[in-house]
Amino acid sequence: MRFIVADWGTTRFRAYLVEDETILDEVASEDGVSALQTGQHRDVFLRNCGRWLGAEPDAPVLLVGMVGSREGWVMAPYATCPAGPVEIARAMIPVEIGNGRNAYIVPGLFCEPAPKAADVMRGEETLVLGSGVRDGLICSPGTHPKWITMKDGRIERFATYMTGEMYSLLLEHSMIGRPATEPEDPAGFDLGLDAAERNSGATGDRRVGLLHLLFGARAAVVSGHMKPNLLRPYLSGLLTGDELNGALSQFRHPSPVTILADPPRADLYMRALARRGVETTMRSPRTALLAGLTRILREGAMTQGQAF
Amino acid sequence: MRFIVADWGTTRFRAYLVEDETILDEVASEDGVSALQTGQHRDVFLRNCGRWLGAEPDAPVLLVGMVGSREGWVMAPYATCPAGPVEIARAMIPVEIGNGRNAYIVPGLFCEPAPKAADVMRGEETLVLGSGVRDGLICSPGTHPKWITMKDGRIERFATYMTGEMYSLLLEHSMIGRPATEPEDPAGFDLGLDAAERNSGATGDRRVGLLHLLFGARAAVVSGHMKPNLLRPYLSGLLTGDELNGALSQFRHPSPVTILADPPRADLYMRALARRGVETTMRSPRTALLAGLTRILREGAMTQGQAF
Repeated sequence: MRFIVADWGTTRFRAYLVEDETILDEVASEDGVSALQTGQHRDVFLRNCGRWLGAEPDAPVLLVGMVGSREGWVMAPYATCPAGPVEIARAMIPVEIGNGRNAYIVPGLFCEPAPKAADVMRGEETLVLGSGVRDGLICSPGTHPKWITMKDGRIERFATYMTGEMYSLLLEHSMIGRPATEPEDPAGFDLGLDAAERNSGATGDRRVGLLHLLFGARAAVVSGHMKPNLLRPYLSGLLTGDELNGALSQFRHPSPVTILADPPRADLYMRALARRGVETTMRSPRTALLAGLTRILREGAMTQGQAF
Repeated sequence: MRFIVADWGTTRFRAYLVEDETILDEVASEDGVSALQTGQHRDVFLRNCGRWLGAEPDAPVLLVGMVGSREGWVMAPYATCPAGPVEIARAMIPVEIGNGRNAYIVPGLFCEPAPKAADVMRGEETLVLGSGVRDGLICSPGTHPKWITMKDGRIERFATYMTGEMYSLLLEHSMIGRPATEPEDPAGFDLGLDAAERNSGATGDRRVGLLHLLFGARAAVVSGHMKPNLLRPYLSGLLTGDELNGALSQFRHPSPVTILADPPRADLYMRALARRGVETTMRSPRTALLAGLTRILREGAMTQGQAF
């Protein structure tokens, strides 16, 4: 099956012409949704992908990511977990791309990871469906890492952490990261993981809280008890370790975990999880994206006879 | 006893002429240390306080706060906990203010709140010594709230949280706070405390982690499950509650706690602690500052015969 997909995020536009999970052609630009005004999206899409549309008049066209957010082309309301290819395809939103042809925006997902809690994703649902995991736990690292449980090939529930954004906030805008110097000493990452583990409640140490450990990292540097070139990797390790404390607690310490990332980012999670006795496997996000789209088209759209 | 003190912080300069813990005269300006260059401090001090120096040739002169930091007048190295008025007075650093007269910078404190952990304070040590608490736990709210244990009238150890700074980071620089609207609905504060309590490990709920709960607050708003005018107070309650989780755990849930703050800030801590069954008393920071300086002068400096 041949199809066209745009992976359209906040800052980047990437599109692929795909056949049987193989990329035949691709295009990328800086036309992320944050740079666009209402009414510009169709023109941007046609400028990037118009040549494929003419050559492939019957290929389905899918749009994934922040293009379906309030700041995107059209707001595609969240589907609700549990959700698989059928529920996601059913919630797709058509947008007209000329000559009566439609592209379909893949919706994001909403879930209640715990009572009175809320969580959302937009884009990762497609990767997760293509992860090859039918039952088990997936970790999708990034600015907002997500932990997702799969059951019978559908997305059961998930929880997002603001780990990557927090790291940037601390280094760019906070007094916590100010004493950091370069070149970084990567040994700090494991020191940060150590501190997070002592704060997990599992080691017999009393929990002291992340907001205290973050201040303590700065205090250690300004009082001469930690070298300033350890600080950045230490903060990265501390935040990653705190994410693991929460994720392993709420998802009941499963093993193995599938990590949807390429090296070197995936390697950090593998190391951190190995210390907790959790086995991991890696899956490339791009491979997962194409496999997920294929599942949505085959299992989802076809069961409803969508007019691609 | 009559003395002169400057409470000299990052953004503000406040000075008092004091007799027996009563303020006879005071002056305030925007001459915080962050606005000054090396070599300017004496002139700024004399411009603000020169008239008292002439009228009170025998009054001791003390300087408290960030004036003793690396960015201040002279770096006053941290004294180490446990520390009382004697150890703090012994570590004071003289600076020459003209005619052979010295002012004395009160040093900050360093401690190891737990093995392999570090913490520092600069300014709060003086308030704490004047809190009237001989044995017990003190909470000093602010941008970086501090929890301090007193033993036999000396500062035993303490832990700092970055709660206030984190709240500002989330609202000013993060996507987490972006959907917040005004006027705020103060009911959000208790909802945030609820979420933190469920994450404390004490309620039977599985812990999910602060980095997830912060993202969840935004997710609840963008998915229509929380009103945007609840978000700011919710974040404040969530962060305050997470601070309480850590502080009550590491300081073994003592009661009562003395809160070194004026309303309305003190009221929020009183409410949050009352929910955990902790009794509180309040003490005004300014009263505590003057009482603490008096202790340093009487119990500390006099035992060593400092040449005031």
